[in-house]
Order: sequence, then C-alpha cells, then structure tokens
Amino acid sequence: MHPKYVYAFEEGDGKNTQLLGGKGANLCEMTQIGLNVPPGFVITATAGLTSGDTPGVPSGVMTEVRSHMHRLEKKVGKAFGSPTNPLLVSVRSGAAMSMPGMMDTILNLGLNHATLPGLLQQTKNERFGYDAYRRFIQLFGKVALGVPDALFDEQCEAIKRDAGVKADAGLRASHLRDLSARFLHVVQQQTGQPFPEDVYEQLAMAITAVFRSWTGTRAVAYRREFHITPTMANGTAVNVVAMVFGNMGDDCATGVGFTRNPGTGANEMYGEYLVNAQGEDVVAGLRTPKPVQEMQREMPELYRQLVALRNTLEAHYHEVQEYEYTIEQGTLYCLQTRNGKMNAVAMVRTAVEMVHEGLISKEQALLRVNPSELEQLLHPCLDLRGAHTPVAQGLPASPGAASGQCVFDADRAEILGRSGVKVILVREETKPEDIHGFFAAQGILTSRGGKTSHAAVVARGMGKACVAGAEGLHIETKTRLATGDGVTLHEGDVITIDGSTGHVYLGEMPMIPPHFSDELQTLLTWADDVAGLEVLANADTPEAATQAVQYGAMGIGLCRTERMFNASDRLPLMVEMILASTTEERQQALDKLLPIQRDDFMQMFRVMSPRPVTVRLLDPPMHEFLPSAQQLLDDIAALHEYRVAVKGQTTAFQALGVSLPDDAPCEELITSVIAKKQQMLRKVQELSEVNPMLGHRGVRLGITYPAIYEMQIRAILEATARCLQDGIQVWPEIMVPQVITARELVRVKQSVEALQQHIETQYRRKLVCKFGSMIETVRACLQADTLAEVAEFFSFGTNDLTQATFSFSREDAESKFLPLYTASQLLPDNPFEVLDVEGMGTLMQMAVAKGRQTNPLLKVGICGEHGGHPASIRFCSQIGLNYVSCSAPRVPVARLAAAHATLLESR
Amino acid sequence: MHPKYVYAFEEGDGKNTQLLGGKGANLCEMTQIGLNVPPGFVITATAGLTSGDTPGVPSGVMTEVRSHMHRLEKKVGKAFGSPTNPLLVSVRSGAAMSMPGMMDTILNLGLNHATLPGLLQQTKNERFGYDAYRRFIQLFGKVALGVPDALFDEQCEAIKRDAGVKADAGLRASHLRDLSARFLHVVQQQTGQPFPEDVYEQLAMAITAVFRSWTGTRAVAYRREFHITPTMANGTAVNVVAMVFGNMGDDCATGVGFTRNPGTGANEMYGEYLVNAQGEDVVAGLRTPKPVQEMQREMPELYRQLVALRNTLEAHYHEVQEYEYTIEQGTLYCLQTRNGKMNAVAMVRTAVEMVHEGLISKEQALLRVNPSELEQLLHPCLDLRGAHTPVAQGLPASPGAASGQCVFDADRAEILGRSGVKVILVREETKPEDIHGFFAAQGILTSRGGKTSHAAVVARGMGKACVAGAEGLHIETKTRLATGDGVTLHEGDVITIDGSTGHVYLGEMPMIPPHFSDELQTLLTWADDVAGLEVLANADTPEAATQAVQYGAMGIGLCRTERMFNASDRLPLMVEMILASTTEERQQALDKLLPIQRDDFMQMFRVMSPRPVTVRLLDPPMHEFLPSAQQLLDDIAALHEYRVAVKGQTTAFQALGVSLPDDAPCEELITSVIAKKQQMLRKVQELSEVNPMLGHRGVRLGITYPAIYEMQIRAILEATARCLQDGIQVWPEIMVPQVITARELVRVKQSVEALQQHIETQYRRKLVCKFGSMIETVRACLQADTLAEVAEFFSFGTNDLTQATFSFSREDAESKFLPLYTASQLLPDNPFEVLDVEGMGTLMQMAVAKGRQTNPLLKVGICGEHGGHPASIRFCSQIGLNYVSCSAPRVPVARLAAAHATLLESR
Repeated sequence: MHPKYVYAFEEGDGKNTQLLGGKGANLCEMTQIGLNVPPGFVITATAGLTSGDTPGVPSGVMTEVRSHMHRLEKKVGKAFGSPTNPLLVSVRSGAAMSMPGMMDTILNLGLNHATLPGLLQQTKNERFGYDAYRRFIQLFGKVALGVPDALFDEQCEAIKRDAGVKADAGLRASHLRDLSARFLHVVQQQTGQPFPEDVYEQLAMAITAVFRSWTGTRAVAYRREFHITPTMANGTAVNVVAMVFGNMGDDCATGVGFTRNPGTGANEMYGEYLVNAQGEDVVAGLRTPKPVQEMQREMPELYRQLVALRNTLEAHYHEVQEYEYTIEQGTLYCLQTRNGKMNAVAMVRTAVEMVHEGLISKEQALLRVNPSELEQLLHPCLDLRGAHTPVAQGLPASPGAASGQCVFDADRAEILGRSGVKVILVREETKPEDIHGFFAAQGILTSRGGKTSHAAVVARGMGKACVAGAEGLHIETKTRLATGDGVTLHEGDVITIDGSTGHVYLGEMPMIPPHFSDELQTLLTWADDVAGLEVLANADTPEAATQAVQYGAMGIGLCRTERMFNASDRLPLMVEMILASTTEERQQALDKLLPIQRDDFMQMFRVMSPRPVTVRLLDPPMHEFLPSAQQLLDDIAALHEYRVAVKGQTTAFQALGVSLPDDAPCEELITSVIAKKQQMLRKVQELSEVNPMLGHRGVRLGITYPAIYEMQIRAILEATARCLQDGIQVWPEIMVPQVITARELVRVKQSVEALQQHIETQYRRKLVCKFGSMIETVRACLQADTLAEVAEFFSFGTNDLTQATFSFSREDAESKFLPLYTASQLLPDNPFEVLDVEGMGTLMQMAVAKGRQTNPLLKVGICGEHGGHPASIRFCSQIGLNYVSCSAPRVPVARLAAAHATLLESR
Repeated sequence: MHPKYVYAFEEGDGKNTQLLGGKGANLCEMTQIGLNVPPGFVITATAGLTSGDTPGVPSGVMTEVRSHMHRLEKKVGKAFGSPTNPLLVSVRSGAAMSMPGMMDTILNLGLNHATLPGLLQQTKNERFGYDAYRRFIQLFGKVALGVPDALFDEQCEAIKRDAGVKADAGLRASHLRDLSARFLHVVQQQTGQPFPEDVYEQLAMAITAVFRSWTGTRAVAYRREFHITPTMANGTAVNVVAMVFGNMGDDCATGVGFTRNPGTGANEMYGEYLVNAQGEDVVAGLRTPKPVQEMQREMPELYRQLVALRNTLEAHYHEVQEYEYTIEQGTLYCLQTRNGKMNAVAMVRTAVEMVHEGLISKEQALLRVNPSELEQLLHPCLDLRGAHTPVAQGLPASPGAASGQCVFDADRAEILGRSGVKVILVREETKPEDIHGFFAAQGILTSRGGKTSHAAVVARGMGKACVAGAEGLHIETKTRLATGDGVTLHEGDVITIDGSTGHVYLGEMPMIPPHFSDELQTLLTWADDVAGLEVLANADTPEAATQAVQYGAMGIGLCRTERMFNASDRLPLMVEMILASTTEERQQALDKLLPIQRDDFMQMFRVMSPRPVTVRLLDPPMHEFLPSAQQLLDDIAALHEYRVAVKGQTTAFQALGVSLPDDAPCEELITSVIAKKQQMLRKVQELSEVNPMLGHRGVRLGITYPAIYEMQIRAILEATARCLQDGIQVWPEIMVPQVITARELVRVKQSVEALQQHIETQYRRKLVCKFGSMIETVRACLQADTLAEVAEFFSFGTNDLTQATFSFSREDAESKFLPLYTASQLLPDNPFEVLDVEGMGTLMQMAVAKGRQTNPLLKVGICGEHGGHPASIRFCSQIGLNYVSCSAPRVPVARLAAAHATLLESR
C-alpha cells in the first residue's frame, strides 16, 4: 500500500511544504481560505522520489492523477483533450525551498491538432492561440523530450528573417502558425517520433520530466551553492493547474497588487492591471498597465471582488501581500501570493499599524522589521531612479549621501562651509589636524585608507557620509586636482558621494531625505520594553551626544577623549605636551589642557544628564597627534627656500639703502619655526613604531606618563563636582584602554581614588564614579577573573580584539587579502564587520564567565564597531552582556536588534 | 611549662631550621656527624618570639643558658669571666632563611677589665688582644646599648690622626689600648652607666639585642623586599659559640676550602690558609694565604685531619662544600660549611663524577646542574678578571663573545672575512641583503632593533654573537664611522662584543673558549633517557643543521625557508618573483627558484638523516625581501646624478671629436637601472603595511599566491624522492604558518596531496610527509579542534603568539615600555623571554586540549624562542607537549631542562 500521492488544492495541508512543496502548499492554503484559485492538484514530492531512476512515474501515481483530472474537468466545465472546449493545464515544479528558475515548468499542456481550434475559438485571438501552441511545443520539446533549444531558436530566427521583423512581437498569427508546424517537424526529426498527440501521454511525460528536473545539473549546483540539504528540501512536488486566460476578451484582465502601499505603508489598494491581457504582455512592455483605482470605474464589481480578495489575504496572512490575479470572462482568479517586499518606511508603518489594528502582536511587529534596514531611514540616500554612472568607487565608510563642491584642504572647507557653501572634503587621507574641515563638510572622500581610517571613523562618529580609499582617484593637494579613470575634478566641481555604496558621482544627485517617523518612534519604544540589552552610544562631542539622545541612546558607552584634543585650540597644547623634554614642561602643558578638557566633560554631562557617560582615558599612540615625518620634511624644505628668498629681499633693500617695510617677513622668525619643526621631526622619529597597532598606547601611556591620565581623571571628577553644584545629575564612568593585567588597573584606580578624595574635600560633595576596563587585548580576556576584582565594568573593544585574535591589521587586511578570503569562503564574513562568533566569540564568552566568577555584579558591554550590528548584538545578548554601545546613527538599529535578540532567544 | 629553649649542638635537630635557624641547625648537624665544631648551643627562635616586646629574655631562657654555659666551660676547659683562662663566646643571629648582614652578631663576649689580661696571655699577642677588646666594646655598644657608631668612629679617627697613620692596620697595640679606654668612656657618656663588667649581664643583654634585631628596620625591609613570610622564617635563633683563635701561635691557623676544585671540578684538595692568623687577616689582605697543599709539609698531621674533614663533609652532604676552619693550638675546628659555588664546568664534572663514585643518583646529578648555566659552556666568553669599561651598551641579542675589526657593510665584511681577517659587522640595522656579511663576520653589532630584530634572529640562528640596539652609538655607513659617548670607531678598529651582556669593548679582549666536555655529553645522555620531551633544533642551513646534530638535536623542528632566499644567488630571483606583474612572470621566477630550493632541502635532509626535518612554508611579508623605500629613493637620486655626469662626459668627448672609450659607462644602461629601481619602489609602496606584524604574510601569502607554496612543496617532495633514490632515509614534515582557520590548512593540504601523488608516480616511490600547522595566532588556539582534524602536528610559535596575546609589538615594546613594566612589577618578566604562563599559557593549554580532543594522536611542540628556556620548557612538559625546538646552541640547555621538567613533575 503506497501513501497518498495526489492532493487536490481543497485537501492539501497548507503548512506541509516538505510534502507539497512551497508553491503547492500555498495553492492549497489559498484555495482553503476561500480565494478563487484556478483549480488543480499537487503530486507529492514523495511520489517523485518513489519514481527514482525509472522512466515514467509510478503507475499508482498516474491512476490518482487521472481521477483528479476528471474532478478538475467537472470543476472548470471543460474537458481535457476536447476539440471544442479543451481544458489546458500547467505542470509546475515546486520544492520546499524556493529555487527560482532551477527546475522546469510546462504551460498550455493539452494542446494538439484537435484541441487547438477549440482554444482559438475560446480566445477569439488567433495570434494568442498559435503563440501558445508554438510555445507549448518548444517547452515540452525541450523539457520532456530533450530537444535542444537552439534548434527551435534557429527556426524562429528564420521566420523572423523571412518576415523582415526583429522581435517575436512583430510576428503575426500566420507566422506563428508556420512556426508551430516547423517546431513539430523539428521534434519529429530529433526524436524520430511525431509530437505526442495524446493529452494523457503529454501529461505523464510532463510530470516525469518535472520530477526529473530535481536532479538536473542546474538544480544540483544550486543546492550545493546555497547549502540546501535534504532535510531542508527533498525532491520537488508537481502542481497541475487549470490554465486561465486574461486575454479572452474585454471581460478579462490580468494584474498584480500589494495589500498596502509598499512605498509609504499606507493602508490602501495598490497595484496595476491590463484589460484583455496575459502576464507576458506586462513584461513585454507593449502596453502600459493602469493603476488599480481605475478598475473601480472600469469593472466596479470585479474591483469589489479584488478588495475582498485583498482583505481576505491580510486577514489570513497578517502580513502585507504581493498578489497576482487574472480575470477570465468576469471571474477573478488569484494565482499567487507572497509576503510583499517593501522599503523600510513602509515596513515600519505597516508593522505598527497592524498592531493598532489588532492583526499582530507588538512582538510580531518588532520581528517583522529587519534592523539593518532601519539605517536607510536615518541618512539621506540617493534617489537612483534614473541611470547614473559613478565616476569613482571607494569603500562605503560612513553611510548616507552628500553633495557639495570638492575642496582639497580643511582650511578652505571651513571658510567655504562657514559662508554657507556645501562642500565635500577631498583628501588623500585625513589627519587629526583636518578636524575643522570635517565639521564644515557635508561629507568626506579619501583615496587612501580603509573603513577604520581616520576619515572613516571620525565621519561615522559625526554621522557624516564618507567614501574612503577610492584608490582610482589620484588626489593632489598642491595642484588642487583629483584625477581618475577619465575624470578630472577641480576644486569647486560639485560631486555627490554615497557613503552606503562607496560610489562617487559628478554633479548634484537627487536625494531622499531621512525619515524618523512617529511609527518608528513607537516601534523603538516597544523594542526598549522588550530588549534585555541596553543601547548606549559612542559619542565624543556634545553634538554627537545630542544626536545620540535624539536617537534614544540610554547613555554614552564610549567617549574617546583623544577626539577632544584634535580641535584646533587644543592640538598645539597637546603637541607641546608631547614635545616636553622634562616632567615639569609636560605638567605645564597638561595644566593648560585641564580646564579645556573639564569644560568638554561638563558640556557632555549636561547634554546626557541623567544618563551615564563612560569616558575612555587616552588611547592612541602620541605620534598620532603629530604630523607625519614626510610632512615635516616637506615643510622644513619649503621654509628653507622661503628663508633664502627673504634673505635675498633683505639684502636687496639694504643694497638700495631703503629700510625694510614694517610687515616684511623676519628671517629670525623663520629660523625659529624651522627649529620647532625640526624638534617635532626628531620626536616623530623617536616615537615611530614598527607596528603602531601593538605599540605604545592606551594604559601603557598612562603608566609611562602618569601625569596625562591624572589630568584626565581630574578633569572628569572636577566636571562632575561642578555639575553637581549646578544641580545636574551626573554619572561618570572611567574606562582604561588596552589593559593586559589587573596591576595596570590597580595603578590607575589608585590615581582615581586619590584625586576623588581630594576633589570631594575641595567641593564638599560626594562623587560616584564607576571604574572599568576595556577588554580589547586577548590577555585581558584570559585574565578577566583578576581584572574583575578591580573593575566594576568591562567593555569589549571588538575592533582591536579582532585584530589580535586573527593577527590581522584591519587596514592591511581589508586592502590586501580579506576580500579574497571571504570571496573564496575561507572566512564566512569580514570579521571586522560581522563578529567572529566561533573564534573570538569563545574568547568573549570566557571573559564574561571569568569576570562574573570573581565579581557577580560585573556590568559587561561592547563598544567596538560590532556593537551596532544586528547579528553581533544577538550574540552579545546570548552571552549575557548588559549593554551595547554604537555610533549615534546606529542606535535605532541596535535598539531594534536588541529586542530581536531577546525575542529570538525566548523562542 | 614552657618548651625547651636551649639546645646544645650535640642535641639540636640539624634539619629543624624553623626552630634553630639555618646557622644553628648547621652547627648541630656538623657537630653530630663528628666534625670538630667549637662547642656551643642554640637558643630557639621560639624563645625570641616569647620575649616579645618585653626587654630582656624570658627568665626561663637565662636559666637554661646558664646551665649550658657551665657545660660549655667544661667542654673547652675555660671559665666564663675567668681572669686567667677566660672563655669568650660569640653571640650570633640565624633565622630559617638566610638574611645576610641584616641582623646582629657580637664577638669576643666575655671580655672585661678582669678577663682581658687572661686573653693577652693566651694569645701572646697584645695587639690582637686590645683590638679584640675595642671591637667588642664598639659592637656591644652599638648592638646592645644603642650607642651611635659615629661616636666610636670619631675616636678612632682622632687616634689615627695623632698616630699619623691612615688605616686601622697601622695602629699599634698601645694605640688600641688607648682606643679601648676612649670607647669605654664614650659608652659611659652616652648611656650614663659604665660598660657592663659582669659577663652574664653582657650575655643576657647580647641575647636580647640579637633577638630584637629580627624586628629591626633593616631586617623588616629585607623580608618585605624578598617576600619572606612568617611561614618561611619566623624570628631568629641565637647561637652562643665558644670563640676559637687561629692566632695564638705557630700551631694556629685559619683557612677556607672547597671539597673539590670549583674551577675545574677535579676531585682534589682545594683551598688556602694562613698560619697564626684570624679570618680578618685574610680579608685585610696584609698577608698572602698559602695553597692548602703546603699544609701537607708544614702541618702534616693537621693536613691529614683536614683531608678527613673534607671526606666527612662530602660523605655526609653529597655535594661539593665550601668550608671554613680554624686551627687553635693544634686543634682543627670546622666553623662553617655550605654548598660550594662553582662554575658550570665544575658543576657538570662533579655531578657526573659523584654518580660514578656512587655518592648520588643520575637524577640528583641532573637536577644539580642549572640548565641556564650550561649555555656558558657553548660559547666563548670574556675573561673579565681585569677591570674593563665597556664603551657602549646594547641588548644581549645572541650569546657569546667575539672580537674583530669594525666593518660597516656586508660586502667589505665578506672580502675581509674571506681573506682571513676577523671582522665585526657594524650596521645601523641589518636586512636580508646583508646575509653574506653575517657568514663572514665573527659577530654583529647594530644600533637599532631589539632581540627579534633581523640581526638578532639571524645571529642566534647561526650561533654568532650579536649586540643589537646599541642606541648610544651613531652609525654612519657613508662616513664609515660609529660615534658614541666619548668614543669614535673607525673602520678597521678592533672591538670586542659580548652578546651575553650587550657590552661593547675597545680592542681585543681575552676569551675563554667553549667547552663541551665528556662529562657534559654523559650528563646530557642521562637527560635524554629521563626527559619526556624531545628536543629538536631550529636550523635553516646545512651548517646550522650540522651543529644541531653535534649538540644532540633529535631533528629539526623549524626550518625557515625564507632564509634560503636571502643568499646572494637567490635574492634576485625572489625579487623577480615579487615584481612579477602577471601569473606567468611569477611562475617563470618560481621555476628558477625550484631547483635551488630543492638542493637546499636535499642538503638539509642528508645532514639530518634519519631524523625528521620540519619545513615551514614562506612566512614573512614580501616587502621584507626588497630594499627600503628610503634606500631606493637614495639610490635613484644617486643614479640621476651619475647619469648627468656621464652625459656631460659624453658631450665633452663629442665636442673634442674623440670617440668614447669602449668601457665608458653607458647612459642607456643607467636609465634602465633607474627604471628597475623605480619599479621596485612602486612595488615597495604598494606592499607597504601599517602593521607588518599583522599583515600579508604566512598562509595568507600562500592563499593569494598559491604558486609560491606549490613551488616550495614541490621542492620538499622532490628532494625527498631524490634522497630516497640515493638510499637516504628522509622524514620531511610540512608546516603552515599564521593559520587562523582549518580551511586554510585544507587548501594547502590539497596542494600537498596533488603534488605528492604526481611526484610519487614520477619517481615511483611512496613518500611519507607529515602535515602540520603553526599555532601562532590566537584564533588558531581557539579553533584548535577543527585544525587538528586536518593537521597531524601543531607547533606553537610563541613569539608571535605572545605579541597577539599582549597586543605588544616586540620591537616597540622592548624599546618603549616593557623595561618599565618589569621594573615596576606590572609584569613579573619580559614575556618574550619568559613564557607568560598565567595568560598565554591558558591559551596554549586550551589549544592542546582541543586539538587532542579531535585528534588524539596529534603531536604538539613549540618552535618559538621560548623553546630554549628552562622555565618555559617545564611548562611545555606540564601541558603535555611532545617536543621543543630551539636554536642549535640552546639544544643542550633544552635537553637538560627537559629532564628537569620530568624529574620535578614526578616529585
């Protein structure tokens, strides 16, 4: 006794895709919820597997099929093989997993010499009839009989040559009739047999062929490529469906629709249709479809039915559906439905509104929106409906699009920017001294550096668009030109950069403004209620902090103090501090920095109050605050030339017996500037490192120059005390970077405690300041138990930790070999973008466990780049972190991702 | 009932150092094994603690002391306080742990106005008597009465001024008598009391003072500094010992001896003595002691007794002893014995001979020799008996000493070296193209770079002396001068470098040649029998391999193929390969390298047969094979000038109408060289990396340029096949560097398998070649389970792994902050020298466990620098490694350390 092989759409289980395939199950489901689906039945995937290698389908199957064909004839009032009123069917593949185009489908099955006249009469459209016939012969010939496609195409070309037309659409009915005849001849010649005239023979051969296509070369390769295993889909089912035609007269039509507007999310009828047409007509573009609203006037009753269809779909699926339908002689058939693809705006709006309508729960709404897609709502993006060709390509380093005039240095950017001109700062690479140019620019374009280059990191922090490492551009600051493949950009030329794709365009491109809608606010509030993780922001300036608060950050998880030193009023003091040759000189410079840094913190604290602010003590190596050796050498050479020129001028004046003008440049001054530059050069050389990533930075600086950390700690604590005096609630947290041993933490903590005691006495206020450690070296993970005895919180710096785990330098790796590694699947992803769960994840998990073992109250978070990426956030949630911190523009993404993490875990 | 406070030397337990202190226990032990020790007794440390803060000792103690004093009087036949035959005693501190000089001792106690004449009569030496008296008064005054030393010294200076002498030794008996009187006056004035005349009062006060010295400032600080906890030593004991005098006449003497010759290890009497003298006389250097052999003639009976004493000591202690003795009126007293300090030669010889003599077991012999000290036997070392001041100081980068003429470039070094001149290659830093200079030089001196700089690593591999990073020297290749603090070295000046200390000396210094004795061979054979770890060598050349075999390496654990490319006949081919712009060009260069590399391997295999040879595929980034950008820029500038000059010359010849000489430099040739250099410069810039340590190297190169690894694998396998044809047993192992995922290993293994099949067919031989992975990235440790599914062996590269674990770049760290970290105890050791057990060790342990979990037969070893360091070897043994691999000169050290590891574990 074999299992049941064939299910009518009325009886198949709409959820059993393994047995019935995705398409079959969907047809059953639609039929059973009362939609008018063209009748038909599914032959199970099991039947196909049972047939194995033997040609033909098992005999039991065809017995069942015949019986179902009879029921089908009754349902549609047509007869299979009838010369007057022929029933035509499609035979379609459909596995449990969608494998678009990989398996075969045959349409219009049932046509032969006898039934063709019936079809011509039914449709009153000769051209359509012959076209259907020749297509059936070719498809059946190819799929069921193995006749090479090329032989049919040859004939088709010949006919078109004879008819003097170029496209198939130009062929008339008579041409197509001739073509059908030629096709039948091709089949006869190739197979040595006439084309099968018996419709049941056609059907059995078609079913066998569709089953066989499961093991075809294309299908097997596809499953290998996309890792589709037998447990995911084992064999294809076969759907036999009655053909319906939208082109049998003016009471016929074909159309597609969305249950809601996929562009705005509005709850309204949306779609297009064509009267007296088949789906192909829309694709061929011969006629322009009409908006569905016109049907209300043109076919009011059918429009009413369509509204009912749409309501049924939403009531059943509780998701926005994209559906296809055909109207055959006044009857509306629903051919297909699937979840509608929408942009993020519509996705958010429909999800929230469906909750309000009682269709879905808040949790369902949250899970329906893909966190990554939220980002497009928060940056302006290019409206690329026209065709535009980029003139250069770099790395998508900071999302969003921006247009403006090219400017080749930060000073000009600032001047133009202040006067209201939109500018794009274009540099070979940027340095801290360019920072004022960032503030003034709409976006940044560089020809060197990767996604962690200075330009990229600073731009992301500011939420400005950035394209980095556009290596095709040769940027020359001196000549104020950028030249690339067939393009030359002069200063002042307007360009548009797309930081989400890395494209650079000439001219100003149309933009879609960012959209932070009420629905998004609502959704994110629900997300916060659900999420187990807190979402904080990485922000270094009051502006970024303000944005972070707007985006719903619950505090600042990473405030990088070095950013504060880069502003033009601080950098000289920082340089003075670095050049100091004695402890006293260094202290003098630090004493000047103290009030500035304290004011920075006070501003941050005010903006964030009453949320916590985590300040990381100085991290980068000191040479990062100095110009490059090459820059200094160039400067010195230029100054030498200048001095020679000035000397010549002075001599000339003297020779003439004329006194020098008051504003004449003074040789001594130039000499002293040269001396200063030379001093800087020596320092740069002294500080230079073979591997700066692994160099003299972080707490190692704090240990070698304790006065620097002391200044910073004092600034934080004094700012706290002063805010408290002003009645502002402040919760500062101090975080130490690059830690490798608890002893480093102990040293810094002693400083904190001593200064805290002193400042508490001075201000007569009790201060509360948490003390924590970055976990960004491997050894910190291995020693987490001892670190947690000193630290109250941990914050994973996953960028550095990834570099150390892989022994990859991010900038070198991304430009030299990582693309090959991911392309050839040596690594599943770029680990700097997607947290390496199987490698580094183990280390993080160990660190969390060890840390909580000695300090059960330990707060643990992540402030590296991964803190804003949904998959990584999910992992952070799984291993029990308390918070993630990411750049302000990613905060909404992270809030939603955090909710997803909790919801998916509780499943 | 209190515990027993006082033990006569006959009754104390010689092992109970906690109760009796080290010195007391030793005196008891010597007494009980029949040595003639001056009689005396120990007052236990417990008694001292019992006395607590109360002044004086507990009354019970003094009662016991009195009774022991009476027994003492009987034993020595003198009476305490007797005016005619006075017993004098010393009162000495002695805790369980030695704290040299930290606590107090009082000598000659029992002297007063009444007993002094008795002493003068006993010794027949007025000067000695008064000297003893004035010393007793000062010492007792200071220790027991708290009189400041300075007051005594003032008086002493005054007497010397009056007497017109400079040193104490110039004072006559009458001066010392006067001085004694003045000292007594000082005490009277300071304490308001006369100096105590009652000898028991003296004794009680002295005992109290010695106990009290346990809590003195110096002693407390010492214990804190050296982490001496109460469980290690709790309080001091007090030893009261009868004084014996070696200066009471010609039947008296004093001396020190070793039971064997501490310089050679020879089993012979060794030592010096002085007749009619006290220990101080030897120290004061007034008389020259005689070798102990003279005693045989001068005091035959006492010499016989001394031989017996020495025999008793060795029979009891089974270790070479350093002992002190005094002969008082024909009686030999042994005053002290301790394990003798010997050099490594003697240590090895005595240990081996004592096994042959049946005194100790082989295991004891092995444990007696410190592995680290073996190294001095394997390099020539400086004979620093004279005073010599180094002229510069660098890092001790490769041990051993070497002298030679300074030479500032590798070419000259080679020319001079070939003609037999000893040279030291002096460079700012070295590059692969200097390699021929290494071969020619005795040693290498650089002014830049650390212990892993090119110079250091290559020199260590070759077993040549190297001082690296002598930053005080400014080395200028152009002017051929090195200038430093008050010194200028010209080319040709002879210098001596000490690679074990980092010192650089002017001139040729005397050296002690290396010594690989029969006894050492024997000891190492025993070590191999015991050791659980195999010891292999890191060797890249047939010469180094030969040395490795001589030193007992059981194979090669690391053969770095890149070294083979640095020789002058290969480097141009390597450069050609790197500059290749197409795959074909690259393959052409590789085809030329193949036979050279194959020959290299055949030579290595021949030398090592039948031992295994592990070959690491190419590891360093490609830019390491090219000159620096600066070098190329300089070259190009020089060539431009040269071309201008040549052009001028040509024009001049033409103007004169003279034809150019045949050998005239050709402008076109110069132009083509410039073009080549410019091509190299572009490549250098293209290949430049921000962090080369984390860059495009190791298997990442093998993946991006598969042809390179294929060439190397082919060379290894063909060399194997050819050796087999010649009847030579070969066991090659292929090792892949910088692995982070098993997929990399799979790729390379596929290459190996394909080539192996091909070569086996071609040579009609079956090849056996193990395939393994370096474990030198953190991710490799975390993924060890999956790596072990592909690899047959693991080899830890601990230098890179340390860098990744700490996020320290070795060169930057050692020059910038590591010294401070170790000095201020943030880290216990430099982790590049001593394996970081608590951090990186955890990772290694995890890797071993994970690896064996999926591959129980996995062989695991270490080939990083730590492989040759005893403490690290011990850790490797503990975590179950199978082998260590180290540079050839460290192989003997490692063999002994491996034996130690096993022996210490089994305890």
